[in-house]
Amino acid sequence: MAISHAAAARPRPGTPQALPSSAGSLFQLLRDGAPRTRADLAAVTGLARSTISARVEDLLGSTLVAPTGEAASTGGRPPATFAFNPGARFVLAVDLGVSHARVALTDLANRVLVEQMLDQDIAAGPAAVLGAVTDVALRLIGEVGRPLADLAGVGIGLPGPVEHDSGRPTSPPVMPGWDRFDVPGHLRETFPVPILVDNDVNIMALGEHETVYPDVEDMVLVKIASGIGAGIISDGRLQRGAQGAAGDLGHIAVPDGNDTLCTCGNVGCLEAVASGAAVAAKLREQGYEISTNADLVELVRSGDRVAVQSVRQAGREIGAVLAGLVNLLNPSVIVIGGVVAAVGEHLLAGIRESVYSRSLPLATQHLRIVGSRTEGRAGVLGASALVTQHVLSPEGINAIAGPDAG
Amino acid sequence: MAISHAAAARPRPGTPQALPSSAGSLFQLLRDGAPRTRADLAAVTGLARSTISARVEDLLGSTLVAPTGEAASTGGRPPATFAFNPGARFVLAVDLGVSHARVALTDLANRVLVEQMLDQDIAAGPAAVLGAVTDVALRLIGEVGRPLADLAGVGIGLPGPVEHDSGRPTSPPVMPGWDRFDVPGHLRETFPVPILVDNDVNIMALGEHETVYPDVEDMVLVKIASGIGAGIISDGRLQRGAQGAAGDLGHIAVPDGNDTLCTCGNVGCLEAVASGAAVAAKLREQGYEISTNADLVELVRSGDRVAVQSVRQAGREIGAVLAGLVNLLNPSVIVIGGVVAAVGEHLLAGIRESVYSRSLPLATQHLRIVGSRTEGRAGVLGASALVTQHVLSPEGINAIAGPDAG
Repeated sequence: MAISHAAAARPRPGTPQALPSSAGSLFQLLRDGAPRTRADLAAVTGLARSTISARVEDLLGSTLVAPTGEAASTGGRPPATFAFNPGARFVLAVDLGVSHARVALTDLANRVLVEQMLDQDIAAGPAAVLGAVTDVALRLIGEVGRPLADLAGVGIGLPGPVEHDSGRPTSPPVMPGWDRFDVPGHLRETFPVPILVDNDVNIMALGEHETVYPDVEDMVLVKIASGIGAGIISDGRLQRGAQGAAGDLGHIAVPDGNDTLCTCGNVGCLEAVASGAAVAAKLREQGYEISTNADLVELVRSGDRVAVQSVRQAGREIGAVLAGLVNLLNPSVIVIGGVVAAVGEHLLAGIRESVYSRSLPLATQHLRIVGSRTEGRAGVLGASALVTQHVLSPEGINAIAGPDAG
Repeated sequence: MAISHAAAARPRPGTPQALPSSAGSLFQLLRDGAPRTRADLAAVTGLARSTISARVEDLLGSTLVAPTGEAASTGGRPPATFAFNPGARFVLAVDLGVSHARVALTDLANRVLVEQMLDQDIAAGPAAVLGAVTDVALRLIGEVGRPLADLAGVGIGLPGPVEHDSGRPTSPPVMPGWDRFDVPGHLRETFPVPILVDNDVNIMALGEHETVYPDVEDMVLVKIASGIGAGIISDGRLQRGAQGAAGDLGHIAVPDGNDTLCTCGNVGCLEAVASGAAVAAKLREQGYEISTNADLVELVRSGDRVAVQSVRQAGREIGAVLAGLVNLLNPSVIVIGGVVAAVGEHLLAGIRESVYSRSLPLATQHLRIVGSRTEGRAGVLGASALVTQHVLSPEGINAIAGPDAG
């Protein structure tokens, strides 16, 4: 279902119009959301009032900036104020897991407008999975009553390594049929907008960072679910590594000489010892009937002592590997997320126990190890942030404000 | 020995003059060193020829840009070409180790003009050590016959964690008397220029990156000497972490359950197992008479089978920890440096053996593990690069081109 550009190209009243790049520069000043007058903008930029007025008109025309009222008068007519209008466009944000997907529409401030979970087996392959996601997305777009012309971009997280520049999965171990699949190309047939694809743990780190810790320069998000992975923010930026494979915590050896065999072919990997799947397997050996991560979470929350002890021990093992990460990266915040993190403080306590005993004092002095605060939405929030960082940047802004996209 | 600014404030023939910020912007285009004509600069910037001519005059006046000759004529008088003049200023670059220091003068392209090694015990404290370094530096400056007014900045590496913003060492374990010492403030009494301080392994990473791997986005330098540490370049930038403590590879536990006691109070740290000091201690237990890293290097180079085997085993242990780093950071180059690296291929072979067997295939697919190519100069080259990155940046350029500094 390709969307024709031509239909949206002619500006109509209330429809976004072309934005000259000079106005795009002015927009960067307004991105923080604070209301400003024309005089404020002239004072900051040093530009002539007449120039500012012309560029503000362009921004108002694009709807990316909207009137917010009037500033206090200093005599005479009070000056009008303007601010970034995050509702001017919307974003399709998708978090694809192994067995579930979360599809959300967000605004340009990464706030969720509407969302839907769906059961979806990633092994069904890219055409089936992306088809189901597209159907849900189009239904949600209809539900909020927005034209596709207002879609600023699509952000999508996949449960495997992604080549950042092309948006293609690279040798993903749990995604049969997806290797090198052109995800952006496929989605662009329906959504003719910027399509950004990344690893699911990377987008979780980005989502938690953007919405909860925007001022923290060095943060790591650890996802504990059936597997274990990390998303790394260093120097304020998401770090992907040379092949987009950075953050693979799950296949680091636990430093205790453990020899459990891992699916990767090595022994003693963290994921083989302390993931939700590994803990559930150990509990089954002791006669417990649990099959999913949700069963494990419920059992621990019910206060079962063996389950609590197993989760705390898994925390210690995760912490033993994180101690090395702390020495290497010296983050100030480690966020523990993923479905198994819902077991709560027992897991965090085990992690803290190992990290604080094994890492160097200087690196742990101001370190916080905390649970996720985004209530399962870190992925879609990060998928949205991938898009807004791109389309609101000085380089990206004209694409969504100009007539081609608008 | 404070330097008076007033003496240098009045422009003299052949002395740097003030540089307006508009000329500073033009300078960024010329930083790559390629010769350009006024017409080239007008074409790239879109500025009027008269504007370009005025700014080129400013740059020539600052001496940061110099005439390089004439381009091919297209009829009429051949147009003059100009290029960045790295010799216009010089940099004092210092690499302080535990027992030695290397003091160098470099140009603005980070090329060593002159250098001197000195035996210097870091435990003598900051006043004694910085005093000795200052004496050597002033002698070298006299030797090259340059006025102090041409000094663009001082870069210095210390063998411990450094708080990046203040340039103060923070709880350095092997530097008694240095904790929180104001290194920039102390040096500025003699050298009234930007003073940049960083950890010694960080500057080695920067030096190797800037001079050998400028186009590699994700690189790690591992220093193997009496201790073991790493400097991390991710996304093209040096990563220091929240307290400037990033890269501390030496106190990560070797994943084999080893229980050797470390000076840090923990057991099984890489440094306690595989550093030059650890290998030398094991060889002494076997009756070898070696005391320094140089003795160890000589013994291995002589082909002694026990020593070769010990170094290869140390390489395997270093590689076992680096395997985790590779999974976390997905670098494309790991450079092995430090004095023990001079033992050569035996160490590299052990490291490669562990990394390639333990890290994930995707992360090692294009990974190179190589010896340092800067012949012991990585530290001073990086100290120089710290300064040139700062003073040649759009924000820093006017400080060295203006009359205050010139």
